[in-house]
Amino acid sequence: MAKSWQELAASKRDAIIAAIPKEWRIENPPNDMQVDVTGKYIQQYLSEREVEITETTADDIVKHTMAGNWTAEEVTKAFCHRAALAHQLVNCLHEIFFDAAIADAKALDEYYAKNKKPIGLLHGLPVSLKDQFHVKGVETTMGYVGWVGTFEGKTGTGKEKKFESEMVRELRDLGAVLYCKTAVPHTLMSGETVNNIIGYTWNPKNRNLTCGGSSGGEGALIGLRGSPVGFGTDIGGSIRIPAAYNGLYGIRPSTGRMPYEGMANSMDGQNTILSVVGPLATTVPSLRLVMKALLAQKPWLHDPLVHELPWRYEQEKEILELIDPVSDASKARKLSFGVFRTDGIVNPVPPVRRAIGIVVKALTDLGHEVIEWQPPSHTGLLDEGAKSWIFDGGVDVKSAFALSGEPLADQVKFYAKLDKEFSASEIAATNVKLRELKKEYMEYWNSTAGKTSTGRPVDAVIAPLAPFPAARPKMYLYYGYSTWVNFLDYTSVVVPVTNVDKMIDGVDDGYQPVDEIDKGVYESYDPAIYDGAHVGVQLVGRRLQEEKMLAIAEYVGKAVGK
Amino acid sequence: MAKSWQELAASKRDAIIAAIPKEWRIENPPNDMQVDVTGKYIQQYLSEREVEITETTADDIVKHTMAGNWTAEEVTKAFCHRAALAHQLVNCLHEIFFDAAIADAKALDEYYAKNKKPIGLLHGLPVSLKDQFHVKGVETTMGYVGWVGTFEGKTGTGKEKKFESEMVRELRDLGAVLYCKTAVPHTLMSGETVNNIIGYTWNPKNRNLTCGGSSGGEGALIGLRGSPVGFGTDIGGSIRIPAAYNGLYGIRPSTGRMPYEGMANSMDGQNTILSVVGPLATTVPSLRLVMKALLAQKPWLHDPLVHELPWRYEQEKEILELIDPVSDASKARKLSFGVFRTDGIVNPVPPVRRAIGIVVKALTDLGHEVIEWQPPSHTGLLDEGAKSWIFDGGVDVKSAFALSGEPLADQVKFYAKLDKEFSASEIAATNVKLRELKKEYMEYWNSTAGKTSTGRPVDAVIAPLAPFPAARPKMYLYYGYSTWVNFLDYTSVVVPVTNVDKMIDGVDDGYQPVDEIDKGVYESYDPAIYDGAHVGVQLVGRRLQEEKMLAIAEYVGKAVGK
Repeated sequence: MAKSWQELAASKRDAIIAAIPKEWRIENPPNDMQVDVTGKYIQQYLSEREVEITETTADDIVKHTMAGNWTAEEVTKAFCHRAALAHQLVNCLHEIFFDAAIADAKALDEYYAKNKKPIGLLHGLPVSLKDQFHVKGVETTMGYVGWVGTFEGKTGTGKEKKFESEMVRELRDLGAVLYCKTAVPHTLMSGETVNNIIGYTWNPKNRNLTCGGSSGGEGALIGLRGSPVGFGTDIGGSIRIPAAYNGLYGIRPSTGRMPYEGMANSMDGQNTILSVVGPLATTVPSLRLVMKALLAQKPWLHDPLVHELPWRYEQEKEILELIDPVSDASKARKLSFGVFRTDGIVNPVPPVRRAIGIVVKALTDLGHEVIEWQPPSHTGLLDEGAKSWIFDGGVDVKSAFALSGEPLADQVKFYAKLDKEFSASEIAATNVKLRELKKEYMEYWNSTAGKTSTGRPVDAVIAPLAPFPAARPKMYLYYGYSTWVNFLDYTSVVVPVTNVDKMIDGVDDGYQPVDEIDKGVYESYDPAIYDGAHVGVQLVGRRLQEEKMLAIAEYVGKAVGK
Repeated sequence: MAKSWQELAASKRDAIIAAIPKEWRIENPPNDMQVDVTGKYIQQYLSEREVEITETTADDIVKHTMAGNWTAEEVTKAFCHRAALAHQLVNCLHEIFFDAAIADAKALDEYYAKNKKPIGLLHGLPVSLKDQFHVKGVETTMGYVGWVGTFEGKTGTGKEKKFESEMVRELRDLGAVLYCKTAVPHTLMSGETVNNIIGYTWNPKNRNLTCGGSSGGEGALIGLRGSPVGFGTDIGGSIRIPAAYNGLYGIRPSTGRMPYEGMANSMDGQNTILSVVGPLATTVPSLRLVMKALLAQKPWLHDPLVHELPWRYEQEKEILELIDPVSDASKARKLSFGVFRTDGIVNPVPPVRRAIGIVVKALTDLGHEVIEWQPPSHTGLLDEGAKSWIFDGGVDVKSAFALSGEPLADQVKFYAKLDKEFSASEIAATNVKLRELKKEYMEYWNSTAGKTSTGRPVDAVIAPLAPFPAARPKMYLYYGYSTWVNFLDYTSVVVPVTNVDKMIDGVDDGYQPVDEIDKGVYESYDPAIYDGAHVGVQLVGRRLQEEKMLAIAEYVGKAVGK
């Protein structure tokens, strides 16, 4: 008799734990007994040396491994150990392949010993991957019980546990060590990470809250320093949300910059709003390291959707020249920012407003300029863009659930209610409307040249990434602060700014909500529950401005002391 | 009583002629009495000075106008005159606005006199535009009778005769003079140019044949030297077909390189296979001139679909270093080409095969390498890509015909027979399949590194642009030689190679056709009818290789003596 979905899910869940060596098993206290499991809490299970390694940034790790000071094996083992702990504390992994990773690391060390040089720019760097990447030897379930033992839900393809995504090939060529794949919400279409295999992935800094989604496992894992850098994907905020919620940096590149080729996806072939792949890490130099390394691999020769855009040092240089020294006599020698305080649809809660204020003050104090960002209303943009996610009437995701009979999590239940596909004409009309809205927004951005003292349009927009610093379970009511960036295909980098302090970030007394959704968001914020949670903001740039935006984000991060 | 479509078409047709000054009116002999109206035939109506100006290439014209040697007014008037003659001989114009052009030219001359410098990189250069561009003061009908007096079929938009397309703004800023808009087949979806307003646009070199389409008016006009450079669009060959059929150079850039913003289109919003805009001219330097000038305007700041890719001199330089000197000792110091002799679906007729052979011999003689191009079968690619044009079941084009009740030309009658829209799922499946086919083709291209002696994959592919050198009316039976390039989003430049010679290019005796379509193509070729017709080939490069491909095309053109 065929197994029930419950049995299948349980055996997959058990297999993940079984891949953790016994000596790395720990007890996980109830969430309310230990709200914050980062820092000292997780460190208690690690040796001093393991803490040292795992709390080194990606760019510093490769300095050690490429100089031959640290072995890939030692580094890999340390991260495997810490990732194993992370999973036991917050359910952040879907696939664990430590043995393969350690074997790969040993091979790298042998190469180094023999050739006296590293194999590539990421020699010996552990890199975690969202469970959309195909990696040989392990499955890709994307959180679907029905995908267990298959290749994207299909059997007999010959690709099962063999096929690798294009970026995986490139990472291996660069010398990166792959060791785990991280949790996602089934469908990928949620800002929380939940599925019937691993359950709910908690925010390690505050286990009352979600770790974010859909690259939630990445956020939680890196938040616990179980990975120095990892890759997520973002179609509506899925890199930036977990980055912000876990106190990390994360970049949503524009479409066509990083290779998505050969990855599993939801609603593949919907090409109105494309999902993009990008890194999350604890520092900007870590993000830059992996992006530069991948671009040096010329991904445009292996992914038909990647543009031939090598790393552009000039873009970085332009920013570096504008920030150093700011005090230059010329008025043009400074940056100019827009600040987007609210979209008028849903208002950010107090700690998010405070984070925005911190960034504005830090930049103003440094001599930069911040003007109010008052773009065309986001309402139409949000409505049109969101249509792309329901074009197929849920056919794709419903078929994935049907494979096993498993139920949809409440967070994505709206897919079950859809019953009509868009027609070609309706899709075309959406595409035209979105193009018109992009053009309108673009011209607004151009028009800010008339408002700045630099004579240039603003260099970046400081904006909330979500109305709250993380969400409470099943209370992710509004996505408009992340999705507008996807709908415009802009470049955005999340910068960690502060943490919720219940003594400072009180509730707005007498707040008059805009509508029911705004009311829901307002009411979901509780200083006691949120205390300690990370608060990040995003810095939004125009399309394909990855080098520039990373340079700005690094500068802003330093300015706010993160 | 509302006018019939016949009356509306006739009055529009008459209005075009009425815009031609009386002194420029000529008699048009029957096609069979004067098959070739280029060269001496059209020159008879022009002064020696007018011939000199109009037979100067675009890049040389701007040298004269920017140095102040030639006035914009004189240049403009000469091209207006020649364009007026061209229209009377082959029906190549939809809109004539000579008065506005001459006024613009005078203003440019005044600017020059006052400032002692040109206004921009295209100062005083007449540029013709396909009738998809919106230009103030004139209509855009795109060949639809129902669009007369409207803005894209709509009334009361406030945009009628006022709105200008983004590239029009940029061309004006650069100092170009706009003076006419050129004929298209209604729907834009044909390799012949025919509609109920201007009738059929003939090939000026051989009036037994089509001028090509859909940028057919451009091809015919520039073929008659009624324009030094013009812009067409290409979704299945529509720049390259008229370029080849009129002995011109023409480039199909990849999507996202040139600004399409604000242009009229068919099936706008279909974003699986995008139409692109690009120039046609008599020389490569003319194409390069306008593309470089437009990119210097940073179109990515005004068109949300344009990538930030300024003109890349390094790409050109790379090619120039490989061709000079070819005799260098190093094996890598030469170009490597693939030659695509047939797609196996339809075989090119003799003069096309001869043109391919001329290119191969010229390059081989110069020391370059040519290997056989044996890519994955084109069958699947052609089938999948063509679906994009019928996604909407003809809804868009049928609604345009319904506005006036006019009938569809035979060439596009297939749209009338469509009755079903594709669903979102079906479109998504097509997108996935096309991406897979692109990936497969890309890896084939990469694999040619193992077959060349340079160690690089081939630099370009020499390929037919159509199975015939132009088509006879209603005998355009096969588009596979142009469309595969669109479906892969490759860069392609058409290079004129030779002319049909009935004494050389006889019929293949005993040819065994592949199937009915191949038989039709085979039988449509008649040396007596085709005698004198231009024969071009295309040089196909990978995606976004415009600089490189123009450099190669210029070199190949010189090599074959055109």
